Amino acid sequence: MAEPPPFPTVAAMEGHGAYNRMSRVQASGLAPALPLLERAAASALLPPAPEAIVIADYGASQGHNSLAPMAAAIGRLRQRVGRERAISVVHTDRPDNDFATLFQTLASDPDSYLPGDAAVFPSAVGRSFYEQILPPASVTLGWSSWAVQWLSRAPAAIPDQVQISFSRDPAARAAYAARAAEDWRTFLIQRSRELRPGGRLLVMTMALDEAGDMGYRPLVEAIYSALMDLVAEGFIQPDEAQRMAIPTVGRGREEFTAPFGADGRFCGLSIEQLELYQGEDRIWTEFERQRDARTYAASWAAFPRASVLPTLAADLDGGSADPRIPDFIARMVAGIETRMAAAPQRMRIPLAMMLIAKDGG
Amino acid sequence: MAEPPPFPTVAAMEGHGAYNRMSRVQASGLAPALPLLERAAASALLPPAPEAIVIADYGASQGHNSLAPMAAAIGRLRQRVGRERAISVVHTDRPDNDFATLFQTLASDPDSYLPGDAAVFPSAVGRSFYEQILPPASVTLGWSSWAVQWLSRAPAAIPDQVQISFSRDPAARAAYAARAAEDWRTFLIQRSRELRPGGRLLVMTMALDEAGDMGYRPLVEAIYSALMDLVAEGFIQPDEAQRMAIPTVGRGREEFTAPFGADGRFCGLSIEQLELYQGEDRIWTEFERQRDARTYAASWAAFPRASVLPTLAADLDGGSADPRIPDFIARMVAGIETRMAAAPQRMRIPLAMMLIAKDGG
Repeated sequence: MAEPPPFPTVAAMEGHGAYNRMSRVQASGLAPALPLLERAAASALLPPAPEAIVIADYGASQGHNSLAPMAAAIGRLRQRVGRERAISVVHTDRPDNDFATLFQTLASDPDSYLPGDAAVFPSAVGRSFYEQILPPASVTLGWSSWAVQWLSRAPAAIPDQVQISFSRDPAARAAYAARAAEDWRTFLIQRSRELRPGGRLLVMTMALDEAGDMGYRPLVEAIYSALMDLVAEGFIQPDEAQRMAIPTVGRGREEFTAPFGADGRFCGLSIEQLELYQGEDRIWTEFERQRDARTYAASWAAFPRASVLPTLAADLDGGSADPRIPDFIARMVAGIETRMAAAPQRMRIPLAMMLIAKDGG
Repeated sequence: MAEPPPFPTVAAMEGHGAYNRMSRVQASGLAPALPLLERAAASALLPPAPEAIVIADYGASQGHNSLAPMAAAIGRLRQRVGRERAISVVHTDRPDNDFATLFQTLASDPDSYLPGDAAVFPSAVGRSFYEQILPPASVTLGWSSWAVQWLSRAPAAIPDQVQISFSRDPAARAAYAARAAEDWRTFLIQRSRELRPGGRLLVMTMALDEAGDMGYRPLVEAIYSALMDLVAEGFIQPDEAQRMAIPTVGRGREEFTAPFGADGRFCGLSIEQLELYQGEDRIWTEFERQRDARTYAASWAAFPRASVLPTLAADLDGGSADPRIPDFIARMVAGIETRMAAAPQRMRIPLAMMLIAKDGG
């Protein structure tokens, strides 16, 4: 790895399957991108038969949120090439990802694309997608959901916040903006190497809305305030809290299009469609129906539990072996739930989806 | 999975890296096969450029024992195709394998083939190799070490032993022999589908010597006797011990060649070379030098610790969640060490290596 892995996955800290159980917000956020993925599967230029068609799933985590998109893509490709043609599905994530749960999910989840299709061949790559991790010109269809908002590393401490979008510190904001721009360019460069001529890449990720807002404000405030409570109680030290940052960013239309320049092209890639939208807040919808603030709060506290809270916990003095980690996460969840239950409201969830084409199709 | 996973890996029970730390016997056993692997890399028919050359590593576990063979194969292929050609290395193992440790080993082990080669692309497949798990005609070079001695499942209880090779029960022996024959045929059929025309497959595995002996007798006797002690002490119940079996087999020349029939061919495969040999007992060599029975015993007890003992533990009444597992393993290790220390001797380690060619080269 070019860079050290700064984001321990939940698998390393909390045992198997945690992310799969907590992916409700993610599942509703990616649903609007599925028709676009099917369109990409319909239009991508295919390799000559009998060469296997490669689908890459960048940032697969434990696989649960990949089942619907992969099934949609495979289904559309099967319409073009029939049932016999080999389709290879490569799920990628960081080296410490919980790949055992991913493979068990593929084998036994009722929504898995695998058991019903004898000509589909899943595999996994445990390397950061900020490197080239697949052979040149090998990928026909790329998919990445809820992944490229994670930076390759936290570029700076955030003095006044745990999330850069709510910080007022100019130096930290500049460092994050620079890292975000560089990481997005790097992501595109590596994918342009891996995509076949005429291939397609669909990216779904966190975004900024028209006002430049990344959303999730009540949740982020609850996280930061729960963290400050742990400092006040002496459970963690001030310098530990100071190190903690969620290394994610939202990007707006300008940031997404920046590398593509005036002619709309970058490294043989061009944006066919770019859409910013609001994710549906199903937790709020449920609250409006049931008026159950505890369930509302627990559902929202589950959103950061699998990825964000273990990331923060890794900055405890003992790192990923710190004995306080289980207690840290439990206390954070409790603190977040208390705050979220006090004032239920609809969450803003700015998202982006974009369909990118590689030259040659 | 066609069959339920009967063999929990050490990762599921003992945390990460255990197999990597315990693979000394395995490493010395596979060393004699490396020149044959290089010969296979020299003679295999390659796909037309720029298509990636695929090496498959069947039964990779946590990856440590794969580093030397993969480096040897890649090195020989690089002599043929230069430094730029993409080489894809697919490490396979069961779904519950510890793939995170495998990818971390690839990223950071000083012996890894990955950091020094920008055109090599590792991936993993978490599915049993008794299925077809890679696209048809995609593999140029296959390698499998210390893996095909594991049956797809234990076919029967063994009333008088924990390892079939020392049992005198005719029904159990017949059931194991039938399962072993069927599994070897299945393994070859699936690999024949995956190999490219002119591809090569090198298999290194446990074997039977000329006398039909699978070897490891003092060790297996120590395991069985330690297990019976746990019954006598009441730590486990008789029916738990009765269920426990090591689902591995040694095969002799006759068993290896059986599917190939009179013309020496099977599913487009033929054996280019088959060699039975004795693995070097480096633990005994070390004992002869140091006369340290405790180190000798601890080294041999480490051999079954990562795979065999967790397999036995999974047959406790509580399955892989049984709270006695850590204590069971610790007591078994202690019991094995006591017995091994009492009478150090050279271990017989019958092994086989065979080079198999796919038609078309």
